[in-house]
Amino acid sequence: MQTKSEYIQSTIAELIKEGNTDALIQQIEMLSSKEVVHLIGHLNIEEQMKLLTILPPEEAAEVMEDIPEAQAVDIFEELDAKDAAAILNEMESNEQADIIMEFDQKEAQAILAEMAPEEAAHVRMLIEYDSDIAGGLMRTEYFSFDENQTVAEITEDLRAYSERYKYYRLKYIFVTRSTGQLQGVLQMQDLLLAKPTTYLSEIILPEVLFVKDTATLDELIDFFDTYDFLGVPVVDKEHHLVGVILRGDILEAETERVTQEHLESQGIVGGDELRTMPVLIRAKRRLSWLSVNILLNLIAASVIAYHQDVLQSVIALAVFLPIISDMSGCSGNQAVAVSMRELSLGVVNPGEVLRVWWQEVSVGLINGLVLGLLIGIVAWVWKANIFFGLVVGGALCVNTLVAVSLGGTIPLLLKGMKVDPALASGPILTTVTDMVGFFLTLTFASLLLSQIGGL
Amino acid sequence: MQTKSEYIQSTIAELIKEGNTDALIQQIEMLSSKEVVHLIGHLNIEEQMKLLTILPPEEAAEVMEDIPEAQAVDIFEELDAKDAAAILNEMESNEQADIIMEFDQKEAQAILAEMAPEEAAHVRMLIEYDSDIAGGLMRTEYFSFDENQTVAEITEDLRAYSERYKYYRLKYIFVTRSTGQLQGVLQMQDLLLAKPTTYLSEIILPEVLFVKDTATLDELIDFFDTYDFLGVPVVDKEHHLVGVILRGDILEAETERVTQEHLESQGIVGGDELRTMPVLIRAKRRLSWLSVNILLNLIAASVIAYHQDVLQSVIALAVFLPIISDMSGCSGNQAVAVSMRELSLGVVNPGEVLRVWWQEVSVGLINGLVLGLLIGIVAWVWKANIFFGLVVGGALCVNTLVAVSLGGTIPLLLKGMKVDPALASGPILTTVTDMVGFFLTLTFASLLLSQIGGL
Repeated sequence: MQTKSEYIQSTIAELIKEGNTDALIQQIEMLSSKEVVHLIGHLNIEEQMKLLTILPPEEAAEVMEDIPEAQAVDIFEELDAKDAAAILNEMESNEQADIIMEFDQKEAQAILAEMAPEEAAHVRMLIEYDSDIAGGLMRTEYFSFDENQTVAEITEDLRAYSERYKYYRLKYIFVTRSTGQLQGVLQMQDLLLAKPTTYLSEIILPEVLFVKDTATLDELIDFFDTYDFLGVPVVDKEHHLVGVILRGDILEAETERVTQEHLESQGIVGGDELRTMPVLIRAKRRLSWLSVNILLNLIAASVIAYHQDVLQSVIALAVFLPIISDMSGCSGNQAVAVSMRELSLGVVNPGEVLRVWWQEVSVGLINGLVLGLLIGIVAWVWKANIFFGLVVGGALCVNTLVAVSLGGTIPLLLKGMKVDPALASGPILTTVTDMVGFFLTLTFASLLLSQIGGL
Repeated sequence: MQTKSEYIQSTIAELIKEGNTDALIQQIEMLSSKEVVHLIGHLNIEEQMKLLTILPPEEAAEVMEDIPEAQAVDIFEELDAKDAAAILNEMESNEQADIIMEFDQKEAQAILAEMAPEEAAHVRMLIEYDSDIAGGLMRTEYFSFDENQTVAEITEDLRAYSERYKYYRLKYIFVTRSTGQLQGVLQMQDLLLAKPTTYLSEIILPEVLFVKDTATLDELIDFFDTYDFLGVPVVDKEHHLVGVILRGDILEAETERVTQEHLESQGIVGGDELRTMPVLIRAKRRLSWLSVNILLNLIAASVIAYHQDVLQSVIALAVFLPIISDMSGCSGNQAVAVSMRELSLGVVNPGEVLRVWWQEVSVGLINGLVLGLLIGIVAWVWKANIFFGLVVGGALCVNTLVAVSLGGTIPLLLKGMKVDPALASGPILTTVTDMVGFFLTLTFASLLLSQIGGL
């Protein structure tokens, strides 16, 4: 039996083959955003090309806005500059810029040359900025009028361009001087309540909040946390109004960052991996992370090699070494996760290493004792030797304390040194806790060797 | 030298002691949202209580909206019902409901009885819903008028209540029948362009999109991905307008979910852990996860215990067992992360296990060969025995393939079975890959025992 998504896929593939534009538009319009994403991921590149050139540019633009950005860029790179430009013309300014930023210089220029001049000019301005500062996150669709215009003139303008304005998300009206400097703000209802002959300068609210085009994502998140606005105007260093930033765009950028940090912490580096990407690229990107880890693992394991004689005398320890390694990693990672969360909430600053360490010690002591007791009893019962239980349980107990101490503080230290804590905390933590864990186990064992030798 | 946040903290603590309301308000208003979060986390409970009762309720409400929800609930629980109600009155409807839902029945009723009747009525309606469906995510602040009212009447109403309406985020005007059923929608500028004597019924757009109060978060995310609106009206099963949902609230709920999934995957269960929570609660919650893991670890390690004789003959293997365990975990977790991401993007459905498995096999073969070769060469060179290298390298190679196969498919299988993949994928993965990895290493070794015995 076909699932709904298989049915969609086969229907659309058939319509693409037939080149049946009307039926395609009708089918695509019925799909939710998730269904579009699924569909595009399951068409081959020829089908994708054909679909996007058959569809009218407005429809194709909606498809491109739905799918993951990495995939959209791949598809745009395959399209003619002319087709790509036609689709890009219909996208929102910030999405246009995000896509074009991913192209190399030559491709980007070729596509910009084919785009509508006004759209291209906006994109050229936006791509001058880094993608994670206000200038790179802003849009160029906003209401902006001169302070010397009257309410009647604005009403007339709103009527004349109502078709274009329908897509403007932010309903504030920004008022500028004739030289372009941001002067104040109005709400739509202020126009409603004013006489038609009133000049905007008479009714504007001059205390308008704004952000600089160089503001960072963190500053923008904090801005929208602090002020309950749907959007904020962006000004350049001469105070010219250059764009607006919507609360939604910042929330999306924040979700994106949380997701990327999570992927990084799990060893997916260099941005999203989609399984539709070429196998060699996927393998290479994963290996870049794994090869660092295998090296760190070898360093940690050298501690075991160094104490091989102890292990030879107490072979049963070999059963517990991977457990101590894994459990310390688990405890340490919990502390890393809490530190990352507290850093992102702003509950702690990178400087408060001692405070965090102390807060982890208390939890680490309790959990170390419980886990050490558990594993100690298992070891004791298994080999009917209480000293063996003491060695294994003692090592896990102490190492749990070490793990939470490191796990809690490493993210703060890395953040303080401007190193990405999502990427580096895990490997550093597990290497050090492995080394300490193996060392503790084998050292405790060598001290009690007369009691536990031969187990 | 004091940092800025230490300075804020000591200044505010001093002002609290003095009970200097005016200076406190002035200081608190100057703080960004992040600074408020940091400050509250660094005051003791008495200082928090005193601050929030000294501040006027509007200011206290802003503080409560800034800090993490878990912390706000803790503080509200310490306050008198009367003080708590005064602050809650000033919060937005969806935040009020989120907080009150965390109280037990009796506390909640005591606070609701003290709140302004209109606010309390809204909250009573909202808390009837689960927090992750439309009814639990909506707000009750929206413009709603009867279809039989005229533009002039609405204009008059907007003027009369302009103070209250200033805080309404969504600028759409929803139009209802006299029986409360949602009938259509208007934009503010439509009022501007219409004659004052026009009835709303004459100018409304009747094809208004809406969501049911039972819509899930996934459905809402998909709605806002598909439609470019800032908000959507919510109706109950009789099509009565009961609230609105803002795009921003859904984006925030999505970020929250991504964050919670990440915390779960790292072993922080039961919601956010803040280090200001009581030590015993923190230890207990972490242990609930660790104790499952230690059990799974013991099961996996039993494979080593079972093959202890092989290990006795080739003690050098003990150096590599933790490496094989850790590296397979790393490879498998990468595949888990990609599957979780693809599921949340909608690129794959839970049913496509075979497709994902096949896409992982190709990467797993390449990475398995590379990692196996690397570790094999190290083992070969270390012990000058190529068979030893073959055993260790072969085991890691095969186990990498096993790990990515499991890592890629487990999240889909769990999702298909309605088990939370963020929570369960990691432990299942590492237990199985550990068992298989230990088994492979020790079995390969026993097969080549004549060549590698005594290493």
